[in-house]
Amino acid sequence: MSEAGPGAAEEGPGGRLDAADWSRPVVGVLGGLGPAATSVFLDVLIRATVAGSDQEHLDLLVSQHSTTPDRTAGILDPGAPDPGPVIVRDAVMLQRAGIDVLVLPCNTAHHYARQVEAAVAVPLLSIVETTVRTAVESADGAPIAVFATEGNIHAEVYQEQILARGGTPLVPDRAVQEDINHLIYDQVKAGAPVDVELFDSCIERVLDQGAGVGVLGCTELSVVYDQHGYRGDPRLVDSLTELARVTVRHAGKELTELFR
Amino acid sequence: MSEAGPGAAEEGPGGRLDAADWSRPVVGVLGGLGPAATSVFLDVLIRATVAGSDQEHLDLLVSQHSTTPDRTAGILDPGAPDPGPVIVRDAVMLQRAGIDVLVLPCNTAHHYARQVEAAVAVPLLSIVETTVRTAVESADGAPIAVFATEGNIHAEVYQEQILARGGTPLVPDRAVQEDINHLIYDQVKAGAPVDVELFDSCIERVLDQGAGVGVLGCTELSVVYDQHGYRGDPRLVDSLTELARVTVRHAGKELTELFR
Repeated sequence: MSEAGPGAAEEGPGGRLDAADWSRPVVGVLGGLGPAATSVFLDVLIRATVAGSDQEHLDLLVSQHSTTPDRTAGILDPGAPDPGPVIVRDAVMLQRAGIDVLVLPCNTAHHYARQVEAAVAVPLLSIVETTVRTAVESADGAPIAVFATEGNIHAEVYQEQILARGGTPLVPDRAVQEDINHLIYDQVKAGAPVDVELFDSCIERVLDQGAGVGVLGCTELSVVYDQHGYRGDPRLVDSLTELARVTVRHAGKELTELFR
Repeated sequence: MSEAGPGAAEEGPGGRLDAADWSRPVVGVLGGLGPAATSVFLDVLIRATVAGSDQEHLDLLVSQHSTTPDRTAGILDPGAPDPGPVIVRDAVMLQRAGIDVLVLPCNTAHHYARQVEAAVAVPLLSIVETTVRTAVESADGAPIAVFATEGNIHAEVYQEQILARGGTPLVPDRAVQEDINHLIYDQVKAGAPVDVELFDSCIERVLDQGAGVGVLGCTELSVVYDQHGYRGDPRLVDSLTELARVTVRHAGKELTELFR
């Protein structure tokens, strides 16, 4: 699948961060999927880490690879460019540079998580696993609504993980899904103003259909959650927040009160 | 100064981004100085770029190296750890990974810009040069106040560049400088709430002392500018905004209306 097998972190001279300068573990961020979500992820990581100076924050190496082919198109359309090999090559590149652990702040791209894991020796902290763990606890037996891209829903990225952890996935009906698509593609990814009332109506409709909680399984929706006052909303479990929490904990740092 | 001489971008197998996958020019970001400023820089870059989809944004490789030794301490205190060699090694690492151009979203660290330029073959887009160019135009002959860290002021990073471009630098008095230190270190870098009235009073005091315009020559102050409604304020020229503008232009992209 890749020119480097598992564990092939090379000791060659090219492109490696200097081990003596960097604080371990260095987190490799497979970013740009999309770029705004990665920028918000870095910001959330900073706000989630207890630190009184720059030097108490995490060290990261970030591939902000905005031009990676669209993930939903890659899943739904056999003729579209395949983002899988691109994400795998970037994971191998970050590993060779010397990172210790990978995160991929894009839910849809977790369709390719197994390919990434097969190509590198470092662990990948899964945004899907950590989000579903929290959602199953919050839902307390009620169905868990999945707000995500068409590609994510089609590939059953969240549904499979919710079932595996004993939960009940609730896939939004066509009308809600089209509103979610509109929010993700025509608003957040396009840099246009966000229709917060439309987002709120999506949440209310899935709750009316029996959901106990809604998972924000798309980092563009995490941008809405972060920037429009949804942080702490008990109706929602936000994937980017859960990824930040698991990343800070994995690095042995303390979480700030807002993220505990 | 570095183990790699100028132009030593190696073709070895380690850590290189895959040239076929990435859109040129790839921008290398020497980040983490501090981490919040880098996160805001990525966000500002996104908002400054005309793009209707993820794929129309810039490709970046970002070293979010938060644990780089403090720059002001390195300049003022001969016994403090020297950040210079660390920044140079990261620049060489990013060049070996395959980036085409470097940016360093930290004004104080531009004290080390010549060391970086001596160690790599790719260009470094200077935040200081681009900010001073705009400030000299805006000031129209009046003195230019420099809001920056003690280290930056002591190393005369801005004063030298303002003089070189025919402007008149105005260094704030002791009382204003101590308020600026407090805003940078005890508030933004510490993740504490920002005293906006104090910031406003700093601006008013240097204008009273004859400044035509104030340069925000510290990316922590750029965070205040961005997050507390100062964007477009004619009293200020913001260094992080100027760096975003020159980066977007260098990459051949169009600037959004707010950043033109």
